[in-house]
Amino acid sequence: MTILSRRTLLAGAASAAALPSFALWSAQFARANTPQAGKQAASFYRYKVGDIEVTVLSDGIARVPVTEAFVLNVKPEEVNAALREAYMEPGVFIGPYNPIVLNTGNRLVLIDMGTGEANYIATKGVAGQLLTNMAAAGIDPKAVDTIIISHYHGDHINGLLRADNSLAFPNAEILVPALEHKYWTDAGEESRSPTQRIADNFKNVRRVMTNPEVMKRLRTYEWDKDVIPGVHAVGTPGHTPGHTSHVVTSGSHTVYVQADVTHAPFLFARHPGWHAFYDHEPIQAEATRRKVYDMLSAEKMLVQGFHYPFPSVAHVEKTATGYREIPVLWSPVL
Amino acid sequence: MTILSRRTLLAGAASAAALPSFALWSAQFARANTPQAGKQAASFYRYKVGDIEVTVLSDGIARVPVTEAFVLNVKPEEVNAALREAYMEPGVFIGPYNPIVLNTGNRLVLIDMGTGEANYIATKGVAGQLLTNMAAAGIDPKAVDTIIISHYHGDHINGLLRADNSLAFPNAEILVPALEHKYWTDAGEESRSPTQRIADNFKNVRRVMTNPEVMKRLRTYEWDKDVIPGVHAVGTPGHTPGHTSHVVTSGSHTVYVQADVTHAPFLFARHPGWHAFYDHEPIQAEATRRKVYDMLSAEKMLVQGFHYPFPSVAHVEKTATGYREIPVLWSPVL
Repeated sequence: MTILSRRTLLAGAASAAALPSFALWSAQFARANTPQAGKQAASFYRYKVGDIEVTVLSDGIARVPVTEAFVLNVKPEEVNAALREAYMEPGVFIGPYNPIVLNTGNRLVLIDMGTGEANYIATKGVAGQLLTNMAAAGIDPKAVDTIIISHYHGDHINGLLRADNSLAFPNAEILVPALEHKYWTDAGEESRSPTQRIADNFKNVRRVMTNPEVMKRLRTYEWDKDVIPGVHAVGTPGHTPGHTSHVVTSGSHTVYVQADVTHAPFLFARHPGWHAFYDHEPIQAEATRRKVYDMLSAEKMLVQGFHYPFPSVAHVEKTATGYREIPVLWSPVL
Repeated sequence: MTILSRRTLLAGAASAAALPSFALWSAQFARANTPQAGKQAASFYRYKVGDIEVTVLSDGIARVPVTEAFVLNVKPEEVNAALREAYMEPGVFIGPYNPIVLNTGNRLVLIDMGTGEANYIATKGVAGQLLTNMAAAGIDPKAVDTIIISHYHGDHINGLLRADNSLAFPNAEILVPALEHKYWTDAGEESRSPTQRIADNFKNVRRVMTNPEVMKRLRTYEWDKDVIPGVHAVGTPGHTPGHTSHVVTSGSHTVYVQADVTHAPFLFARHPGWHAFYDHEPIQAEATRRKVYDMLSAEKMLVQGFHYPFPSVAHVEKTATGYREIPVLWSPVL
């Protein structure tokens, strides 16, 4: 690695003569022994979509062991190879959670929620960070007037309730995809749960979404319509039966809020044919994924991904084998 | 984009019947009209290298018009094409500044400084953010006991002085590359300045580095030696004559702090043959760049880049035409 070392040594000797010597002089400077901070920065990030201010708020991460049960149609070795290609440790998949808040100027809108305060306690802050990162971002949960939910998996709805089961966002109306709500509250569908995981999800939906205080605030919305002005609902089923994405538009600016069309892109955009255990209908999920990602890459459309690495906003491009995410440049000014 | 829309509409109608209607119910929820925050999150990020805690601190960004004078050996159209390929607006290059702080357990070390408080005032906070982001990160400038400088360009040294010319880090010793110090304080070299830009840099170095309070704290260091325990100096000349990189090591963990071996990677790692106006000796700078990046990609070594997009820590891989940076996954936990 070293270049010009002889010249350097000579130059160094000359300079050293002109400046105080280390031993004499370094003693003037006490070491402060400042304690290490030992914790991460509050993880939130802002950007504008036209007149809309978007705040991305990390809810933390999940750590999922890479076993046969993680991606159902490829071997763990193949998943680990992809993790290595992404310069990540093999053996454990790190899945980020990133809800967003939109300030439209007259609404404060939370899209999806993360895993909830109870999970913050259970994981010692590894996940369930939404409320702490909202506090750091200066967003009062009581000021959230609108919640839009993409689908009924726990990491998108559990944050509705605090650890004591009170409402985390007590003044918000809760807008849910009509089809998703119908499926997960249908006793007949529940009785036909194809897996234990899906049966468990029915139970969790009942716990959260039929909480009486949640029920009071609930309203369904339809695909192909604006949920609120500037937020259009697009059906992207497969991950769950009523899984919904949201196209956020202001003026000529757009971001496609893809929820779980792919999970973390370093595995599942790069390998759109992989069927992770949490895709409800894997064949349909893959078809949706390819269709949406063909559109996003062709249109060079900005995409916000719930499980993308924070701050989870990127462009995607088509590759020989799938798609690749190009994170936006972090702007230290808004 | 829409899938299953007929099924959805039917499902939606059914669900809507079971839930309160929008018009009746939405009136319960007042709009808070929360003002938009209008500013970015404090931009700092932490990670560990063995026992060393690294804090990356944004100093903001520069905006450089893409003209003939920006990259000397390619046309502006080619630069703009590369910006478009990186999903950035053509016409203006956005160059980030990212100093770092190391807390080694017994030293608090700042590597490079950013553009300074005077520039914070001049740019209205677009650059010169180091002190504000340090405050957000809970790092007291008075607690910094060691400053290590890579080279003597203004964006790496101007932050030594506050807007009133007092020391920004009054209790720190200032460790500078011997060869770099010799070159930029040599009247003969100054008289031979090949360009106005270099002549101006000699003047700026005199202003900052021969400030009497800076001089009192100055000590030169040599290439191929530890600057302090855990921080090894590697000569990487070309960008400036004494330009130095730093290999930070703790236990089996390493990060290569590359300073300006490349400027922003989305242009200059991807196009290592491009000669930007600020490379002092462009042929030597390119040779150094290729040598370092061949090593970084072959070794899969973590790299911290002063002008990388915040948080400016990545791996790099060799491509057909140059190198590509793979940003690390943001970890919302330390």
